[in-house]
Amino acid sequence: MSILIKDVYFDGKSTNIYINDNNIAEISEKAGNKADKVIDARGKAVLPGLVNMHTHAAMSLLRGYADDLPLNQWLEEKIWPTEAKLKPKHIESGTAFACLEMIKSGTTCFLDMYWHPEANAKATSKSGLRSVLNAVIIGTNKSVEDCRRETKKNLSALREYECETLKPSLGPHAIYTVTKEQLEWINSFSEEQNLLVHMHLSETDQEVKDCVKDHGSRPAEYLQNIGFLSDNKVFAHCVHLNKKEAGLLGKSGCKAVHCPTSNMKLAVGGTFPYSMLRSKEITCSLGTDGCSSNNNLDMFEEMKFASLLQKFSSNNPTVLPAREAIQMATSAGAESLGFNAGRVEEGKLADLILVDLKELSKIPLHSLDSNIVYSANGSVVTHSIVNGELLMEDRKVEGEEKTIEKFNKAVEDIFQT
Amino acid sequence: MSILIKDVYFDGKSTNIYINDNNIAEISEKAGNKADKVIDARGKAVLPGLVNMHTHAAMSLLRGYADDLPLNQWLEEKIWPTEAKLKPKHIESGTAFACLEMIKSGTTCFLDMYWHPEANAKATSKSGLRSVLNAVIIGTNKSVEDCRRETKKNLSALREYECETLKPSLGPHAIYTVTKEQLEWINSFSEEQNLLVHMHLSETDQEVKDCVKDHGSRPAEYLQNIGFLSDNKVFAHCVHLNKKEAGLLGKSGCKAVHCPTSNMKLAVGGTFPYSMLRSKEITCSLGTDGCSSNNNLDMFEEMKFASLLQKFSSNNPTVLPAREAIQMATSAGAESLGFNAGRVEEGKLADLILVDLKELSKIPLHSLDSNIVYSANGSVVTHSIVNGELLMEDRKVEGEEKTIEKFNKAVEDIFQT
Repeated sequence: MSILIKDVYFDGKSTNIYINDNNIAEISEKAGNKADKVIDARGKAVLPGLVNMHTHAAMSLLRGYADDLPLNQWLEEKIWPTEAKLKPKHIESGTAFACLEMIKSGTTCFLDMYWHPEANAKATSKSGLRSVLNAVIIGTNKSVEDCRRETKKNLSALREYECETLKPSLGPHAIYTVTKEQLEWINSFSEEQNLLVHMHLSETDQEVKDCVKDHGSRPAEYLQNIGFLSDNKVFAHCVHLNKKEAGLLGKSGCKAVHCPTSNMKLAVGGTFPYSMLRSKEITCSLGTDGCSSNNNLDMFEEMKFASLLQKFSSNNPTVLPAREAIQMATSAGAESLGFNAGRVEEGKLADLILVDLKELSKIPLHSLDSNIVYSANGSVVTHSIVNGELLMEDRKVEGEEKTIEKFNKAVEDIFQT
Repeated sequence: MSILIKDVYFDGKSTNIYINDNNIAEISEKAGNKADKVIDARGKAVLPGLVNMHTHAAMSLLRGYADDLPLNQWLEEKIWPTEAKLKPKHIESGTAFACLEMIKSGTTCFLDMYWHPEANAKATSKSGLRSVLNAVIIGTNKSVEDCRRETKKNLSALREYECETLKPSLGPHAIYTVTKEQLEWINSFSEEQNLLVHMHLSETDQEVKDCVKDHGSRPAEYLQNIGFLSDNKVFAHCVHLNKKEAGLLGKSGCKAVHCPTSNMKLAVGGTFPYSMLRSKEITCSLGTDGCSSNNNLDMFEEMKFASLLQKFSSNNPTVLPAREAIQMATSAGAESLGFNAGRVEEGKLADLILVDLKELSKIPLHSLDSNIVYSANGSVVTHSIVNGELLMEDRKVEGEEKTIEKFNKAVEDIFQT
């Protein structure tokens, strides 16, 4: 399969992009005389597909179900009891719907942690999105043996769907929901199996306080002490980290994910220390978090929130400029996941989106970067290509009506029982 | 002219809304057998039109022109020199484009401050939006006599276009750009002419420091001392107010406008003290500010930023819940401007919008309020009605191509000279 994107706005001028198989083969005005598919991209700009680095995709089922509540009440009375009712068929419908929402708003790749990995992987695989998936590992009341058995079972379920675009990983929930012994085993298993590890870290101040009380050290120090910090770790949130902890994460090659909207909505009591983490050369990417703490999967919105929250919190309007926000949402994510994507460059994987330059938020075109980050939202995306496959054309995604119908049935089923 | 909105989702069920002339005449399942225009609103919800309470509409010309800069450099090297080049024809095109953007994202009414009021009023009048407009009053180097002459001239220009939907007002820029004597005259003139006064107040810490240095008191105290505080005053930003100042504003019936996105982007060093202002019973509404400090006019986005910024800054996820954010963006704005609008109620002015419930951010429908504030953006609006006139139908606005064309020409003209 080959695709020719013709007369597209890129790097300040009009050019052609030729995609052969799953790669960007050529970028030039003369590229691609023949292609299986030609996209007329006049009036459109090409961007690297957005990489959503922290999702619980199927939580789309709970969008708007419980908002404006104190954190504990929200979790204990609303989210957890509902999640306990979710069956694999619900997860499948929820994930499929989330994938549709991601495609429609320009995300081409995501890192997910949720329950029922077989259902999650089935839906994701069908969507065509690139992904790194894992099952939640949770339960301080479980033995290491139980954790091992469950984790291996979940990994096998994911491996059924493993392919070029879908990679399994491990998802220990957090330091307060997974024991030291479990974390030690997960770490050695991840190295043995060459798997990425995706975990929440230092989201709230309470987590830090509890860690100091229970382990005599702050979260990142605790993880360092048990040998958990290495370059296959991706930590979501990373709000309450001090300089020493940032140094530990940086030295060991860990990756950090900023989730500004979720952090603000849940009022986690601090700001992702972007400048400090960058000073330790930590790769910082962006994630929306699940739909019950955001409440959408729009990475355009996330870029704006990230940039504005950093400017606001550091009292400096020059911090996290538009260009850097785009890098966080594209190349930084792809690099953190080990995919050769995230840039519009020859030889990179063809994960690309087109955005409508005629849409009002893109006019005038003083700066495409500024318009993308500060003015646009996901509705400006017209085309999505993942791994050389066209997933959306002129905002139409194959089978979308059916995805929505199944999703609505799942919601009805969950909330009527 | 009568409009029947048929089978629309309102207050948890399907109903009809009958608009006669410029009013909401009836809301019931049986409403309106005959109407000049019938809108099939199945799968759509009705909301009060959004009221954008702080704009410099024509600054759409500068969207994305200068971002990520220190405040002074941004103003002195970029914004002010460019604004000095703007001619009435540019303002007219810029305002027309901004009105189009507002209609397309659900705003039905706005409060504006900018240059060349004749051009601003001409474009706004043509758009059909409801508005309260004023010309910037600025210049500490001018005599009161000059200020008086200019202000009266600008008011006459606005009065040429005054009608049911377009009201003139007065726009002294800020306490540091308008002298005490000018403010005193503006205040008495506003009372004499029964005009609303729209002013920036306590946006930055520097403004407070300078005020204390120059006048021996904080900004709201200074205004109180010169007799400026009364119920025809609408103050934008109101970030750096202390409890005593909030008390002064509350006692005198002044209105406050929160501009969260602009405040975050420009890093003004504080947060609109929402809870404190509400405790003084001050009407708090929402504004986007101009397109060079936001960079769009999407009031849906503004509601999300407002709610999340308050939660974040107060470290409390229950503050400014979705319902209140919607009220700030609708009824609070309409009340501040003295229009009998901002609610979907019989007898209110017919300023209404329809939003697409089938759009992904509106699914599932656990809570329409939550979905509107936390998940949607302006692209979900399908219809706009202002003063009983249909301004947008199925996202089409009459003459929009021409508006965009003229706008692009204006941008070219400004930036090529």
